[in-house]
Amino acid sequence: MRNISRQDCAILDRRDPLAGFRDEFDIPAGMIYFDGNSLGPPPRAALIRAKEVLEKEWGEGLVKSWNTANWFQLPRTLGDKVAKIIGADQGEVLLTDSTSINLHKVLSAAVSLRPRRRVILMESGNFPTNNYIAQGLAAQLNRRLEIRFTDSVSIADAIDESVAVVCLTHVHYISGSILDMAAITAKTRQAGALSVWDLCHSAGVVPVDVNACKVDFAVGCTYKYLNGGPGSPAFLFVARRHNGRARQPLTGWWGHADPFAFERDYRPAHDVRQMLSGTQPILSMAVAEAGLDICLRADTTSVREKSRKLTGLFIDLIGERCSGFGFTLASPLDSARRGSHVSLEHDQAYGIVQALISRQVVGDFRAPSNIRLGFAPLFISYTDVWDAVERLLEVMKDGQWRRPNHAPPNTVT
Amino acid sequence: MRNISRQDCAILDRRDPLAGFRDEFDIPAGMIYFDGNSLGPPPRAALIRAKEVLEKEWGEGLVKSWNTANWFQLPRTLGDKVAKIIGADQGEVLLTDSTSINLHKVLSAAVSLRPRRRVILMESGNFPTNNYIAQGLAAQLNRRLEIRFTDSVSIADAIDESVAVVCLTHVHYISGSILDMAAITAKTRQAGALSVWDLCHSAGVVPVDVNACKVDFAVGCTYKYLNGGPGSPAFLFVARRHNGRARQPLTGWWGHADPFAFERDYRPAHDVRQMLSGTQPILSMAVAEAGLDICLRADTTSVREKSRKLTGLFIDLIGERCSGFGFTLASPLDSARRGSHVSLEHDQAYGIVQALISRQVVGDFRAPSNIRLGFAPLFISYTDVWDAVERLLEVMKDGQWRRPNHAPPNTVT
Repeated sequence: MRNISRQDCAILDRRDPLAGFRDEFDIPAGMIYFDGNSLGPPPRAALIRAKEVLEKEWGEGLVKSWNTANWFQLPRTLGDKVAKIIGADQGEVLLTDSTSINLHKVLSAAVSLRPRRRVILMESGNFPTNNYIAQGLAAQLNRRLEIRFTDSVSIADAIDESVAVVCLTHVHYISGSILDMAAITAKTRQAGALSVWDLCHSAGVVPVDVNACKVDFAVGCTYKYLNGGPGSPAFLFVARRHNGRARQPLTGWWGHADPFAFERDYRPAHDVRQMLSGTQPILSMAVAEAGLDICLRADTTSVREKSRKLTGLFIDLIGERCSGFGFTLASPLDSARRGSHVSLEHDQAYGIVQALISRQVVGDFRAPSNIRLGFAPLFISYTDVWDAVERLLEVMKDGQWRRPNHAPPNTVT
Repeated sequence: MRNISRQDCAILDRRDPLAGFRDEFDIPAGMIYFDGNSLGPPPRAALIRAKEVLEKEWGEGLVKSWNTANWFQLPRTLGDKVAKIIGADQGEVLLTDSTSINLHKVLSAAVSLRPRRRVILMESGNFPTNNYIAQGLAAQLNRRLEIRFTDSVSIADAIDESVAVVCLTHVHYISGSILDMAAITAKTRQAGALSVWDLCHSAGVVPVDVNACKVDFAVGCTYKYLNGGPGSPAFLFVARRHNGRARQPLTGWWGHADPFAFERDYRPAHDVRQMLSGTQPILSMAVAEAGLDICLRADTTSVREKSRKLTGLFIDLIGERCSGFGFTLASPLDSARRGSHVSLEHDQAYGIVQALISRQVVGDFRAPSNIRLGFAPLFISYTDVWDAVERLLEVMKDGQWRRPNHAPPNTVT
């Protein structure tokens, strides 16, 4: 079979039904941005929306905008948009707070619904904040909760009737491996346990259908493939069947049954609103809507298909063109099991990532030896992938990666 | 003594050392904005900062801005600015999350430092989210914690050796009464209890010196007199003497001793950073800095003096000019005991507030019968106060308050 050419990539771009979405984003000219899995770029509409919030809603409407600009309802109105993206019903999702805090809320609700069980099952290689939050909750509850860590291949075997909650991330933050949400959630239900899914690396790029899978709770962020902006508020999902029983402990006034009655004592809202706590960062939240709206306009099947083809193209090109340079694929070869980012291992990963950045190819370094590249189908093209591999090849040939100009930075996933 | 005239107010304005600050804010022409105690207006610098964050830091820097634009450090760098405003030391304050969530954190830390005591003492008429958060924590801990409510005059008497934590708001959200932080905190310490102060209605306008008072913990918002923007992140203070022992349960990765080591297990940061949880809403946070910077440039003594004179002028004018219209003062007459807002009671409060708003005098209605007006010294002038009372008089004389054009809205304090 002949090798892939740049011309082949250009043909794929011409046939790409999603190609038009690139113009919706403001990405520096010449940059190939493979970090949309960490922080999505600004939608042009986000800049317009920000100006509107600042000048009209805050500047002219001032305090009235809590009502007239719908600020107070944003967690629900934007949550309803996320619901469409993850297969939830209207009224089951909120945009609020951070993923960490939302995980504390839903884990707390989940363990309280299984008072006679002790185990929270998690994947040991997961993004650590999930572990930390579970550990903090266990310490807080002083209930002899046990965090049982397992590796990704042993999850199903580890679910037994001691397990209260199975808390997993759908797409792994380093490898990009997709866990089988349907099968694991079914096993979880059979064991009488509850499921909590972290959708940070899947929402907006990998199909998710929480209700088809009968998921109990989910959380996720909006600043990766949903392009909500740096640290934009996270989401949480509570299956409607848990309304009135799923209770979280950060019982601020926004989660009260009648927040504006200013009653002395807490009375929980009867639905997902009980998961609200205090006043939300409106500017960050309102701006996030622009990214959600783009995602809602993109055809889910096309997004997934392009995502698989982009990551597959990259893996193929690395195999064809960079085979002598010591790269190891740290992501699934089977695109059905792969999210929208690809990890390569290389013992000079940091220097290579730095050299690529200096050539306008922006990806992530993950200590100690990981190059992580995200392929966001709404703004990455097939020729982008070709050009990135071309520059990687240049970097490897000229040895530029041997001369990183500073120490590894701290980066936010 | 002759009555106050508009001319008298104009003279006060000409002598006002803070008069120049008005130009730093973007307030609609003709509006007299007495809701700076609820949502401060946008500083002009906030609009510039927002553009910079959106276009340069997010748009050009993209994911690199977590380091190059200092995003990851914002909770601490902005916390250090708040520290100067509330009498804390550098490194004792963070900007993060919401007041409700921060209150959960510090209350949780405080009760865990007094494991053998059962009582959280609170003021029953306080803004209810504080009660709700304490109630939620008590339910979560299942430790037979008791929330003991007292009225404001009985606080000192209610502090005994059963009390673990005294959790109070410095300036009352309706009456504007100031509690004696020094005396109550001293009594709290004598009883072996810990103090948690809510500074929402004092930070930036009423002098606060948490360390001079030996306060243990404090929280507060930045969207009132600190003009941070709608729902801008809140702050929290932990006295340095509690470092290493004060622990909160929302143990996200930002509060880990080494967040970028991605260790499997949580290890708490040794200082106030343990109070961090997850990724912060950077746009809302960065924009809040503009308001903090204005506050830091304003002379604290002048701010307090003008605040007392503005509220005093308003009360005097109501007494002189509106005496026959059924208003009752619901705030302290003694300006030393009064924060920077004034509450009037009137059985037609809602209609009156609506009529004032239609005449560009924006204040708050609080059910059932409260008119609440905030006097932010950085942008309210003495003639503003005169003109507002003039318009109130017009409203009362022509009976416009009898025709409110819609039902009471929900408003955020």
